[in-house]
Amino acid sequence: MIAVLKNGTTKPQMDHLIDWLSKQNISVHISKGDSYTVLGLIGDTAKIDIDLIQSLEIVESVKRVSEPYKQVNRKFHPENSVIDVSGVKIGDGSLNFIAGPCSVESEEQIIGIAKQVKDSGATMLRGGAFKPRTSPYDFQGLKGEGLKLLFEARKVTGLPIVTEIMNINTLDLFEDVDFIQVGARNMQNFDLLKELGKTKKPILLKRGLANTIKEFLMSAEYIMSEGNENVVLCERGIRTYETATRNTLDLSAVPMLKKLTHLPVIVDPSHATGISWMVEPMALAATACGADGIMVEVHNDPPHALCDGAQSLTPEQFDSVAKKAFKIKEVVD
Amino acid sequence: MIAVLKNGTTKPQMDHLIDWLSKQNISVHISKGDSYTVLGLIGDTAKIDIDLIQSLEIVESVKRVSEPYKQVNRKFHPENSVIDVSGVKIGDGSLNFIAGPCSVESEEQIIGIAKQVKDSGATMLRGGAFKPRTSPYDFQGLKGEGLKLLFEARKVTGLPIVTEIMNINTLDLFEDVDFIQVGARNMQNFDLLKELGKTKKPILLKRGLANTIKEFLMSAEYIMSEGNENVVLCERGIRTYETATRNTLDLSAVPMLKKLTHLPVIVDPSHATGISWMVEPMALAATACGADGIMVEVHNDPPHALCDGAQSLTPEQFDSVAKKAFKIKEVVD
Amino acid sequence: MIAVLKNGTTKPQMDHLIDWLSKQNISVHISKGDSYTVLGLIGDTAKIDIDLIQSLEIVESVKRVSEPYKQVNRKFHPENSVIDVSGVKIGDGSLNFIAGPCSVESEEQIIGIAKQVKDSGATMLRGGAFKPRTSPYDFQGLKGEGLKLLFEARKVTGLPIVTEIMNINTLDLFEDVDFIQVGARNMQNFDLLKELGKTKKPILLKRGLANTIKEFLMSAEYIMSEGNENVVLCERGIRTYETATRNTLDLSAVPMLKKLTHLPVIVDPSHATGISWMVEPMALAATACGADGIMVEVHNDPPHALCDGAQSLTPEQFDSVAKKAFKIKEVVD
Amino acid sequence: MIAVLKNGTTKPQMDHLIDWLSKQNISVHISKGDSYTVLGLIGDTAKIDIDLIQSLEIVESVKRVSEPYKQVNRKFHPENSVIDVSGVKIGDGSLNFIAGPCSVESEEQIIGIAKQVKDSGATMLRGGAFKPRTSPYDFQGLKGEGLKLLFEARKVTGLPIVTEIMNINTLDLFEDVDFIQVGARNMQNFDLLKELGKTKKPILLKRGLANTIKEFLMSAEYIMSEGNENVVLCERGIRTYETATRNTLDLSAVPMLKKLTHLPVIVDPSHATGISWMVEPMALAATACGADGIMVEVHNDPPHALCDGAQSLTPEQFDSVAKKAFKIKEVVD
Repeated sequence: MIAVLKNGTTKPQMDHLIDWLSKQNISVHISKGDSYTVLGLIGDTAKIDIDLIQSLEIVESVKRVSEPYKQVNRKFHPENSVIDVSGVKIGDGSLNFIAGPCSVESEEQIIGIAKQVKDSGATMLRGGAFKPRTSPYDFQGLKGEGLKLLFEARKVTGLPIVTEIMNINTLDLFEDVDFIQVGARNMQNFDLLKELGKTKKPILLKRGLANTIKEFLMSAEYIMSEGNENVVLCERGIRTYETATRNTLDLSAVPMLKKLTHLPVIVDPSHATGISWMVEPMALAATACGADGIMVEVHNDPPHALCDGAQSLTPEQFDSVAKKAFKIKEVVD
Repeated sequence: MIAVLKNGTTKPQMDHLIDWLSKQNISVHISKGDSYTVLGLIGDTAKIDIDLIQSLEIVESVKRVSEPYKQVNRKFHPENSVIDVSGVKIGDGSLNFIAGPCSVESEEQIIGIAKQVKDSGATMLRGGAFKPRTSPYDFQGLKGEGLKLLFEARKVTGLPIVTEIMNINTLDLFEDVDFIQVGARNMQNFDLLKELGKTKKPILLKRGLANTIKEFLMSAEYIMSEGNENVVLCERGIRTYETATRNTLDLSAVPMLKKLTHLPVIVDPSHATGISWMVEPMALAATACGADGIMVEVHNDPPHALCDGAQSLTPEQFDSVAKKAFKIKEVVD
Repeated sequence: MIAVLKNGTTKPQMDHLIDWLSKQNISVHISKGDSYTVLGLIGDTAKIDIDLIQSLEIVESVKRVSEPYKQVNRKFHPENSVIDVSGVKIGDGSLNFIAGPCSVESEEQIIGIAKQVKDSGATMLRGGAFKPRTSPYDFQGLKGEGLKLLFEARKVTGLPIVTEIMNINTLDLFEDVDFIQVGARNMQNFDLLKELGKTKKPILLKRGLANTIKEFLMSAEYIMSEGNENVVLCERGIRTYETATRNTLDLSAVPMLKKLTHLPVIVDPSHATGISWMVEPMALAATACGADGIMVEVHNDPPHALCDGAQSLTPEQFDSVAKKAFKIKEVVD
Repeated sequence: MIAVLKNGTTKPQMDHLIDWLSKQNISVHISKGDSYTVLGLIGDTAKIDIDLIQSLEIVESVKRVSEPYKQVNRKFHPENSVIDVSGVKIGDGSLNFIAGPCSVESEEQIIGIAKQVKDSGATMLRGGAFKPRTSPYDFQGLKGEGLKLLFEARKVTGLPIVTEIMNINTLDLFEDVDFIQVGARNMQNFDLLKELGKTKKPILLKRGLANTIKEFLMSAEYIMSEGNENVVLCERGIRTYETATRNTLDLSAVPMLKKLTHLPVIVDPSHATGISWMVEPMALAATACGADGIMVEVHNDPPHALCDGAQSLTPEQFDSVAKKAFKIKEVVD
């Protein structure tokens, strides 16, 4: 960390700061220029609160040179982490498709879709049981019943299941879930992250709607700092001024995350765009820029089901996307 | 709700939709133009999922005419709601100051500040016990111990206390808190909102960092729809591209919220700007545009305490802000 | 266009509006619901100012059903436009690479790079002569001299040249330029757009830093409405809250633009990311999601030149990107 | 400027950089830490292109310590600049109202409004003659004819006039305009800024829709660096994800700009909010946080004129706003 002191900082003021820092086991290298003094802070600065230093009267500006995250940092763990989800590996160089309906609706629906997406190459089944909804009047999911239907679909197809947790208190219901998703709105639900950090479950952490890449990594750090190393990151679109798409899929985040962290990175083009005909091009683009996996909504029987999402693919469309994506993956490698 | 159907929609397709809507107790008024057909949906459309309608193949676009929120809606509750926080009224036309330190640190600190801000006209005491922090390595608050110190300060000064809850599981610890704050990062922690809706406690709901005014109102609706009418809204800055200030304080939200809802609206200029010298101008501006209250960080003993925030005022500065704000309030009324 | 009238609108008020609309050759279809009245405006509503209608006391909200752009609209021109840039075709299903240095610096530099990028498959040469710079103290380009060097490089390699115009008054200097670029900051310099619309030159219109897709299309409409049909659109990153990359490359805009307009769409990953090692993944992603071309900065002799951009590729890196991109293009087709 | 070099930078690499910097008259202070080397750049670093330094292989990160703007910088000009607009002073501690219609429509209209706003305390008359419009099909203003009507209104009322220039080529038409406005879309039309910098005319520079405070100041620097010191800054709302208001009025920018520059700062609440009933609260808030002036749209005869803007006040409403604002100004001083 580097702190630039204001012109006119007195010696006692500076000494007071250096003294306080040394109590935090930070040593200081002083560099005096004509118009400013630069302090180089040396030691475990990840534990120093940058806002606190910035707040001091005598400080012009502060800048981290080393990142505030450690366990997720590729600098300290150069090789890719490979996460094992009940036998399926993510981050080992393969391309994983996680596919399934937005919400679990019925046994017939979830088993039907599970079989179809498996045939097209999906390695995991997604499906919402607990649904975070903006309105209290919208459908909130089948909850525990939905989880049971997912378990049923896993039994039939062998696909590990991915589903979202919204609340610490339901954690025991998720004991049998293979891959627990933390949704975008909970990316900074720190108490939830800490509890999940105490398990050994693979965690699929979605980027918050308006969170920076740095905050995203800090949330992963919350999980890892409690001892759980099984974290997968998921870019799912960020909030911008553009309204033509639901969110703006930030694909630049993929290579950036792969540079900064050893954790696998997947992409969810369905939620980002909110429009089914945009899922294919964005899934292919995500593959082309290095994603370890794609999470995509697939529904069956669209003429019957009214609530089939604007963002969901039919199994046939999914099959076509997967085929092209696997070919692009070969080119990229 | 108005749905514009695509050109080329067939009669059976349209009838299928109208049929489905009628099962949701929505009747439909059809208006056929040359190049498009418009359906007017009549009935309790708040319970209709707009994304679901938008998702249909035959739908060009959908638009809500009536708002999706009901209990928070001023249309159905034209007069201002006045929230009673242990005897202090918010929303009755007065200007409330909620002041206190970022974090509760010690008995001496919190009681000292409480006395000083009370003398300057503050009607409530704020102080963080459970602190949401971006980094797992940053100070997370004194927790239960911090709450006790707040109770102590209340006993001495009589000021009701405001402090943040982060987790449903700690709700019983908050039984004795006068005014429970839901922080920006938890604005869409729907399970937490629902639990708080089952209490009768006054809730201070902060706007999420990148949430729209509509989403903000929907989160208040979550609380009210469970039966708790004691909700106060707090604008605290939104995330934009601008980096000169920590967040962009969206003061336009104040008159807009006052127009859309009967709930009181307060403003937190400390967190929005992150810079102490900006607190005064923004507190005065918030007063000028109609806020029912101002929430502001005040610390004492700045030369001693290293961690006093860049965003905190001294008690003397707070006194000056409050004096000017009360005068502005008179002009505005 | 659909206008929803407020509850309580009187008959004379409504008649006054309908009367005014009929003078603009707009007929009105009235649909009365229980709680609101909907007017369907029929006729050439592209010429109706939506803000003007929205501004009326009696209007609750207005919504365009048909797009305000016409000549750029795919609805009225379903097949792809193919733009001919001195013999090079864009939009015909091929993948074009436009490559070259950020700024033209010397004859040796520009000719050297031109030869190398041509060998790797680039079909056009880019290079800045007039440079828009945030600071008046930054290098502003070689200007007319830079154009001459570009002409020289074209003579040697046969590559058509692409370079940016900043000012109507320099238009005659651009007479011999093959493809005139309008930069992001000038996307809404309407007088410049109109003048360019009076020429027959191919125009490369870059999306403004914070412009919506709709505004982008309206700016293309400015050029086309003056008679110049030779417009190519370029996505180059938008401004968001994220600071890890210079801008956020909005690749979702590619399929969305291809849906809405018949004009070709290219992508500039160099300016969007500002970081050379991100150019390859984002160029491949742009290809995978359907871009008609990629515009990329290439420099030579990096150890010597101090000003080689963080965002520029070496010719060898460019060669590798182009090879992979052409393979991905085959998969996508 | 401070440059942090990457671990593993060799001595010759560092010497090459230092050598190049010394040729730009920048001397370097080297500070070697355990894990990084910090270079302090001393001299006229405003002329150093920060992107260029950032781009170097060996550079981890760069940070400006001194601002890149000089002539607009309050550090080098601590007292407020007072701009004289044909006898009206801005920045001298008074509160100026600049009022008038969105577009000049007729002699009767502009003279009528001019008289009324003058009576309510406005010191300048605004009115659009050349109108930048998103759509080529929208009304583009009366142009030269509009300017003549403004001159007429000035003759009758004595109010100096403010109107927007869109294009260098029309500069001679503006010779008789008292205060030339550069609109938000032209904030980075650098050639226009330079031409205006060569005049002595007072320039009202509006902040671009998505421009940072720093870029705003750099654009003012463009004008000043050519010799014209008569620049007034205008905050008019920025583009964010929020759609409830047209733009988000960034009032925090007012105290921040007043801190960073000696130039006067005014606020335009009409364009920012786009809604007439929001103009009063936001005008009062702007006054409360220290604006030197308010620019507001006023129309007359609203029942007759259909195109009176949603964002315009009636003369009576304007009178009420002005009265309250002058009282708030007294409190703030």
